[in-house]
Amino acid sequence: MANIAKKVSWSSRGDEPAQGEGTPLLNGTGAARYSRQFSGGKLFHIGRLSTVDLEEEIDEEESVVSRPKEIPHNEKLLSLKYESLDYDNSENQLFLEEERRMSQMGFKCLEMSRWLVCALIGILTGLIACFIDIVVENLAGLKYQVIQQNIERFTETGGLSISLILWVLLNSAFVMVGSVIVAFFEPIAAGSGIPQIKCYLNGVKIPRVVRLKTLVVKVCGVICSVVGGLAVGKEGPMIHSGAVVAAGISQGRSTSLKRDFKIFEYFRRDTEKRDFVSAGAAAGVSAAFGAPVGGVLFSLEEGASFWNQMLTWRIFFASMISTFTLNFFMSIYHNKPGDFSNPGLINFGRFDSDSTEYYLYEIPLFIIMGAFGERESYCGNLSLALLHFNGPVLFLVFSRRAHVSFTPAGGLLGALFNVLNYWLTILRIRYIHRPCLQVMEAVLVAAVTATVSFTMIYFSDDCQPLGEDQLEEYPLQLFCADGEYNSMATAVFNTPERSVRSLFHSPAGSYNPVTLGIFTITYFFLACWTYGLTVSAGVFIPSLLIGAAWGRLFGILLASFTPHNSIQTLADPGKYALIGAAAQLGGIVRMTLSLTVIMVEATGNVTYGLPIMLVLMTAKIVGDYFVEGLYDIHIKLQSVPFLHWDAPATSHSLTAREVMSSPVTCFNLVEKVGTIVDVLSNTSTNHNGFPVVSRLSDGCEPGKICGLILRSQLIVLLKHKVFVERARSRLNQRKLQLKDFRDAYPRFPPIQSIHVSQDERECMMDLTEFMNPTPYTVTQETSLPRVFKLFRALGLRHLIVVDSDNQVVGLVTRKDLARYHLGKHGLEELQLAQT
Amino acid sequence: MANIAKKVSWSSRGDEPAQGEGTPLLNGTGAARYSRQFSGGKLFHIGRLSTVDLEEEIDEEESVVSRPKEIPHNEKLLSLKYESLDYDNSENQLFLEEERRMSQMGFKCLEMSRWLVCALIGILTGLIACFIDIVVENLAGLKYQVIQQNIERFTETGGLSISLILWVLLNSAFVMVGSVIVAFFEPIAAGSGIPQIKCYLNGVKIPRVVRLKTLVVKVCGVICSVVGGLAVGKEGPMIHSGAVVAAGISQGRSTSLKRDFKIFEYFRRDTEKRDFVSAGAAAGVSAAFGAPVGGVLFSLEEGASFWNQMLTWRIFFASMISTFTLNFFMSIYHNKPGDFSNPGLINFGRFDSDSTEYYLYEIPLFIIMGAFGERESYCGNLSLALLHFNGPVLFLVFSRRAHVSFTPAGGLLGALFNVLNYWLTILRIRYIHRPCLQVMEAVLVAAVTATVSFTMIYFSDDCQPLGEDQLEEYPLQLFCADGEYNSMATAVFNTPERSVRSLFHSPAGSYNPVTLGIFTITYFFLACWTYGLTVSAGVFIPSLLIGAAWGRLFGILLASFTPHNSIQTLADPGKYALIGAAAQLGGIVRMTLSLTVIMVEATGNVTYGLPIMLVLMTAKIVGDYFVEGLYDIHIKLQSVPFLHWDAPATSHSLTAREVMSSPVTCFNLVEKVGTIVDVLSNTSTNHNGFPVVSRLSDGCEPGKICGLILRSQLIVLLKHKVFVERARSRLNQRKLQLKDFRDAYPRFPPIQSIHVSQDERECMMDLTEFMNPTPYTVTQETSLPRVFKLFRALGLRHLIVVDSDNQVVGLVTRKDLARYHLGKHGLEELQLAQT
Repeated sequence: MANIAKKVSWSSRGDEPAQGEGTPLLNGTGAARYSRQFSGGKLFHIGRLSTVDLEEEIDEEESVVSRPKEIPHNEKLLSLKYESLDYDNSENQLFLEEERRMSQMGFKCLEMSRWLVCALIGILTGLIACFIDIVVENLAGLKYQVIQQNIERFTETGGLSISLILWVLLNSAFVMVGSVIVAFFEPIAAGSGIPQIKCYLNGVKIPRVVRLKTLVVKVCGVICSVVGGLAVGKEGPMIHSGAVVAAGISQGRSTSLKRDFKIFEYFRRDTEKRDFVSAGAAAGVSAAFGAPVGGVLFSLEEGASFWNQMLTWRIFFASMISTFTLNFFMSIYHNKPGDFSNPGLINFGRFDSDSTEYYLYEIPLFIIMGAFGERESYCGNLSLALLHFNGPVLFLVFSRRAHVSFTPAGGLLGALFNVLNYWLTILRIRYIHRPCLQVMEAVLVAAVTATVSFTMIYFSDDCQPLGEDQLEEYPLQLFCADGEYNSMATAVFNTPERSVRSLFHSPAGSYNPVTLGIFTITYFFLACWTYGLTVSAGVFIPSLLIGAAWGRLFGILLASFTPHNSIQTLADPGKYALIGAAAQLGGIVRMTLSLTVIMVEATGNVTYGLPIMLVLMTAKIVGDYFVEGLYDIHIKLQSVPFLHWDAPATSHSLTAREVMSSPVTCFNLVEKVGTIVDVLSNTSTNHNGFPVVSRLSDGCEPGKICGLILRSQLIVLLKHKVFVERARSRLNQRKLQLKDFRDAYPRFPPIQSIHVSQDERECMMDLTEFMNPTPYTVTQETSLPRVFKLFRALGLRHLIVVDSDNQVVGLVTRKDLARYHLGKHGLEELQLAQT
Repeated sequence: MANIAKKVSWSSRGDEPAQGEGTPLLNGTGAARYSRQFSGGKLFHIGRLSTVDLEEEIDEEESVVSRPKEIPHNEKLLSLKYESLDYDNSENQLFLEEERRMSQMGFKCLEMSRWLVCALIGILTGLIACFIDIVVENLAGLKYQVIQQNIERFTETGGLSISLILWVLLNSAFVMVGSVIVAFFEPIAAGSGIPQIKCYLNGVKIPRVVRLKTLVVKVCGVICSVVGGLAVGKEGPMIHSGAVVAAGISQGRSTSLKRDFKIFEYFRRDTEKRDFVSAGAAAGVSAAFGAPVGGVLFSLEEGASFWNQMLTWRIFFASMISTFTLNFFMSIYHNKPGDFSNPGLINFGRFDSDSTEYYLYEIPLFIIMGAFGERESYCGNLSLALLHFNGPVLFLVFSRRAHVSFTPAGGLLGALFNVLNYWLTILRIRYIHRPCLQVMEAVLVAAVTATVSFTMIYFSDDCQPLGEDQLEEYPLQLFCADGEYNSMATAVFNTPERSVRSLFHSPAGSYNPVTLGIFTITYFFLACWTYGLTVSAGVFIPSLLIGAAWGRLFGILLASFTPHNSIQTLADPGKYALIGAAAQLGGIVRMTLSLTVIMVEATGNVTYGLPIMLVLMTAKIVGDYFVEGLYDIHIKLQSVPFLHWDAPATSHSLTAREVMSSPVTCFNLVEKVGTIVDVLSNTSTNHNGFPVVSRLSDGCEPGKICGLILRSQLIVLLKHKVFVERARSRLNQRKLQLKDFRDAYPRFPPIQSIHVSQDERECMMDLTEFMNPTPYTVTQETSLPRVFKLFRALGLRHLIVVDSDNQVVGLVTRKDLARYHLGKHGLEELQLAQT
């Protein structure tokens, strides 16, 4: 069981040392026991002293007896394994000296190099987007051509099962490659990467999330999964890719490639790196959707507590460069140099002015689409036709609907998607944990996707005449008459991006309602099954596709229910497809502001701004009533200590005294090396920040706060053996510089790798120069919201709690704050676990 | 002289008590002397102890002798008269008790009422925009019709001077009304109001800026000045109007109307009010430009250090409602209900897809437009034609250009505009200070504007055929042939909004280059003269108009220089007009991100997003090289202690010790009423925040910090006579509640109005319950950037500096931080003055 928990988490890998039976478990009684040890009392007792550091023995029997039946869900835990990033500069003497030495010109150069880095981020992200796009287009084109020819060959002779097998094999092969590299080489590259980037921008260190290897696996993985015909998009991974590019470039070196270009050394700390990563994420959004402003807003929504004007402009600049680069190279690739009509990976096509009008009475319809979404798919006798195809699946839907219909706000397809995916993920965490199993599941999904698609095309009798200006790249004639093509094939025998575009822009009548209904339902479940597979893939495009399908269906049904002499505009199904796509996507991911702008920029038309906003807001409000957004669900399932925007509303009753961890391990200004090594080596606590106090040795009373020193700093000091005695004996010893810390950043060696001899253990270390002498402090009476605000607004990692004499009494870290959240029954406290 | 300074400042009014010769002056030696008294040493000495509170006598002679010649410019001063807003909640016992009493449901209701307030803000702002638009359209239509008929009557008979007089009189009358109400009733309503709102969002309390009276004067004023034909727009004032609406509604009462609706009482504090004001400003932008996302970004750019996701969504919601309301009512007014094509006051018209293409090689051209802007107006023999009309004015331009041409980056029209306006404002501050003079200047400008317009039309021989689908509302035939109209009249005999639209969309050939050149130059100087008049008016539309004119000129010249067989698109002058408008506006106001989005939303087309961004960035970079943005100039000229995003880059050498004000006036936990009254009555210090310490009475050593109490809180306490003795004697005395503080907010009575008898002076006051027990503190060694970051990120008003024993040693306020700024020669320190 221990391995189960480890395998499925974002950051775990097969080669990590197994910790045996003693390892805290993710599920089962073991976890309950362990978390008890941490909370040391009632499970949801609020306002207790945090006892993370308490060494007291917990009675084994009692803990087993007390709550033996309770199997805590994953989301009730808070993992202790995630470290925080340190966005607060450690303003120690070295840093201040360097800053004071720097001239105004120096700062200007620094500012210019920041702009340069952002330009490079934009260019590289754009190029990666180009690369993905071109490779996917070519490989997918090749695949569809081969299958199309095969199908055409066998349509007459009747051996279509061979075509099916060919299709299944081709898809499975691609997906297997994509899944193998993800599962065996870099599990963190799975999924869209957006939850991970959200966490990173929030201040949580997700191991290996911004490494070069992750980028390579991500890019190859996404190509394989899209070409493999899975219900996935290539847009989400672009955001992750942009972030990796940013983290790489801004550091001016690659530890994977073992190259250090000796540039941008100033940026080698969390604060600066994070700024660039947000620019990279924005550039990724920008390249994915051709939405530079949307990209900026995405970065703001995810990490904006550190917002600042100059930074925003740089982010904007990176976004702009990114979409421009993509546009430029794609225009050359398409032999239309200078034609900037491909600003993003997904292109919604041009919504021309004539068709973009909407009327006041349509707004309630749009809002209904946002709120009730799923209803329309089931109205009328359509459901009978659907039952024919998806009996068992529909049963599930109907049984859920029976429940949902009674809730006052109605159901939302997005919430349903999230709920289903949530349970699926739980199942995956429990049962599908080994890489080979994960690969097998991915291949299975690929095979099923191909089979279902083929079946739908095979049984579909929706033939449409082949127009002059057809949008379909691979029209399948199949059993249709000459000059006609199979309409279902347009939707499923195509890359998802093309299908979306076709649903938006095909003239009225291109799809018949049954086709759309069947497609919606099938694709919904396929996409839901697919998200969370061990492949690199995004959920944006599948969401858009589902929404576009039911939106178009809604439009068609609406037109058929209204008298024929009503205005033609009403009958434009493309408009409803767009609104449906927005509603579905909004219902799944729950971003509002940024998503509105992304959609507006991707459609290239602001006319729909207002309806899209309304729809997204409704989708969010209705969806939030049932379940959180998809990304938040996955973050919660990983037990990440994610800090939300505000402290829970009802948390004013808590003060720093209750929240803080206590007692705190402190160091003296001049501390014995042996003590430091022992504290750092203590794996049971594994603290990262240590208040430095004066006169601790006098007695047992806590000392006055002098500063704060980090584990990473101590490790560098130990590594360079900066001991008082050595400094005295050898006067010409090189003084430690900020550069030494930067060179070690961000992969500081573990304490175990540093050898300290018995003699050296007796030496002393003077921390004065290296500690941050002005850490932020609060008093014990400070309320939780106040502590939270300070912590969040400044991006702190450690906040020292002092008494009225400035003596250290506790330490507040991210997990202390993330523990409290607002549940159904008021304030709840999450359990802490070492998982 | 004292009055000069007072008259022109935003917040000064005629009825304020004159303080005689002792009043510190804005200009002249008096100011130099006074500021010396404050800085107490060398004028630009960095790193000294702040001596604002020092009572030491300055030798009168020395101060006069030391720098007798130095007449400090306004922008080298920092006014002490502006109070700060307090965005940090005073979490005293009363507050915490209330918060803890509140249930989760209570917080939900609160959240819902926040959304309700935002909806109301949006609706009201939209309605105000409707009102302004409809009244302006009708009055201006009436005016132009009267004049047009008059001109037509006299064109043949030859008495056109009568038409001129009629025009001048009509314009002057409107402007006089507008100017009189502003100058005599509410001077704060002058200008666009954007600098004032920027300051408010930054945390500076600008007196009377969000009062109902200001709103009424602003709305009437802007109608008068636009109808009066000044070179102004009605968009800027909308932002101010939205902010006033927000401040009013969110408080649930109006002190002007003496009505208290007893709702939204929870929102009666700076923190909440500010959030709503940013929503109001966004709603204003949204209504003005039909740009809801742009509005949100505007609010973010101006006050985003307090950003948070839920708040942003509410701001977005208010923006959305605002543009929708405007759209809805305008569509009804225009008898096209349901046609949502009027999202804002200014409508750039539809840029259709066919004409919105641009090519790669155009991008450098666009950038040149951003950077060099003004050059094109002077190239070729065009300048000769211009000289004919504007000899003296052009001379000035040429002489400036001779200088500018040598600077490497070239000149920018926006920077020139700002420089000219800067000098003009200095002149106004010195010489045009009395309301009647201000009214006279406004009327003069109105008359000159009318005369110049008339002259330009009269001498113009640019006749264009009257097309079928003419965009001109009031075509003037004048001396043109039948079926033709005067092209110059389209530009000047029209509301500026219509002129902009005409420049964007008129087909190629509608304007001839000479007309555009003359118009650009004339309008440039008129607009520059107009901004800063004592009328309520915005600078957005004039800027756009100037830019559109020279942009179109640039396009026409470009087309004429290129061979005729080149692509037609190049010759589309409307495109260049749009880019020129963006460049000019960007060069003047220097907003980047929000302006890009505003322009994109106003054009209704994202295709131009990238070029607009590039142009705005170039305009900002080039413009910043010369001078700041127009709004920043005006903020500086008012000596407002405005906090920028970051501390100056080279300020790491300063620490809290040097920055703070010291010694600090502290109170004991239980303090004598007499002491409190005396301290509050001391007009020479006029402090607003007082650290509360324990054991101050023991000796002269500073006490340990216990909390922070505000002047406003003390005043409420004194008013209610919350004395220890009274509490003891009458046990049933009503306990003071948070409501008492809220009722007094925001206009706390002055200390002079509170009568405290001699007996009461001997009573004691217990501050424990009312002070904020957990104020943020820093140590003396904290560097300025660190202090700055804390101060700015949390929106503080007072930051207490303590020593290692938690004893109060100083207090950092806004003016202490705003003092330091980065000048040409490194870090500079502004002088403080009581102005």
